[in-house]
Amino acid sequence: MSETLSLSSEDLAFLGPYIPPSGPQHSQEPNASSKLPFTSLTYACSLDGRISLAPGTRTALSGPESKSLTHYLRLHHDAILVGVGTAIADNPSLNCRYPGAALEDQPRPVIVDPRARWGRDGEVVRLVGEGKGLEPWVLVGKGVKEAAGLGSGRVEVLTLDAAMAESPHFAWRDVLKSLAMRGIRSVMIEGGASVINDLLANERDLIDAVIVTVAPTWLGEGAVAASPAKSVAAMTDVKWRQFGADAVVCGRLPK
Amino acid sequence: MSETLSLSSEDLAFLGPYIPPSGPQHSQEPNASSKLPFTSLTYACSLDGRISLAPGTRTALSGPESKSLTHYLRLHHDAILVGVGTAIADNPSLNCRYPGAALEDQPRPVIVDPRARWGRDGEVVRLVGEGKGLEPWVLVGKGVKEAAGLGSGRVEVLTLDAAMAESPHFAWRDVLKSLAMRGIRSVMIEGGASVINDLLANERDLIDAVIVTVAPTWLGEGAVAASPAKSVAAMTDVKWRQFGADAVVCGRLPK
Repeated sequence: MSETLSLSSEDLAFLGPYIPPSGPQHSQEPNASSKLPFTSLTYACSLDGRISLAPGTRTALSGPESKSLTHYLRLHHDAILVGVGTAIADNPSLNCRYPGAALEDQPRPVIVDPRARWGRDGEVVRLVGEGKGLEPWVLVGKGVKEAAGLGSGRVEVLTLDAAMAESPHFAWRDVLKSLAMRGIRSVMIEGGASVINDLLANERDLIDAVIVTVAPTWLGEGAVAASPAKSVAAMTDVKWRQFGADAVVCGRLPK
Repeated sequence: MSETLSLSSEDLAFLGPYIPPSGPQHSQEPNASSKLPFTSLTYACSLDGRISLAPGTRTALSGPESKSLTHYLRLHHDAILVGVGTAIADNPSLNCRYPGAALEDQPRPVIVDPRARWGRDGEVVRLVGEGKGLEPWVLVGKGVKEAAGLGSGRVEVLTLDAAMAESPHFAWRDVLKSLAMRGIRSVMIEGGASVINDLLANERDLIDAVIVTVAPTWLGEGAVAASPAKSVAAMTDVKWRQFGADAVVCGRLPK
């Protein structure tokens, strides 16, 4: 039994304009590998804009209908990207469990881990062994000592130039470029809060579509907020649709 | 020209289950005045759950369609209630500007002002003079010195027992009871953040319906949040509908 449901044709029509253009014609473009991937920003929050009850806690927010939507979206992206904090705190599967999804439909899990903090284990690695997910890529800062060390052999380590401030961090454009160079034409960025907030505040021109699930609950003022450091004007091309008790909003960010 | 639009029949059908039962049969009940009013909690927020950019700032969030919804809701409530912070910061009109609304359709503006801080002037008072709104009621703590002082004669001061901690404050049940005793059968509570957050965290059993407008924008982490001190489980009886670029969610709070 699949844990997700198929979406209705109305659901698919709703999502259509926001999913990445599909493969063939796209990859035949002469400079396909120099283009940045189609990049979606996707997360679920409460009515008070919170994504989890506390840092390092996984909080169930979306109902079965909007969860199915997430898996449908994963089916339509070449890669799913999360920050290392989420990889550690949530132990996410990062695979596609939409009904009928086969191994060749699986998106590439990508973990952005400039300081090489991730233990390179957990669900995402287990699923590789079970043939239910692709080998994850972990993006580590070039020169970070631990870069080559850990791991099960089911994880591929990619190194990337990192800026050094308090701690090494990447430029998002470099991250996306490095994925494009390895054939990724579309990437779904799922979190966590620091990734979402950084992109919303500083890198809106890299995001092609935003898809947010809003659950009719309040996680409270102590919870982790998807709220950028500065305000972001209203999205354009906005559509909302109810999925179960949740709503999903799709739109484009103002540049 | 009215500044608001009429809602469609689909909009009205969507709202129907969440608006207060209408007048006649309700007021004929023997103990009508001892019953608490039907109480709606209504506000607009961004995707990050913020209601204004900074304390004391009025921030335009909802588009014309969801603004029309607010005025339609005001038409169906006997009173509109805000906290004194909102009365001072926003200088709100607190009247109904739905197309065709006459003076006899106007809701009673109620300002909860335990310490008698409100200057008893501004839009809400001006509109009384213009015949476009009812004389506001200001609820002031019994024994607060300034209670009887200020005002234009277009404001009625009601006094209420207040608990004294750092500053006088009312029990919400007493507020609603005092309104019921003056014939108010339905009240729409519109804000601000401290009122919303207190009700969500501590007084859910007093709220009969919640109607929140969500605008597809992010006001940012420095903005004023509608986010209670503790988490609130998902609403029941939830419906969402798109109004312009915004969504409106209606539901009931878990007790």
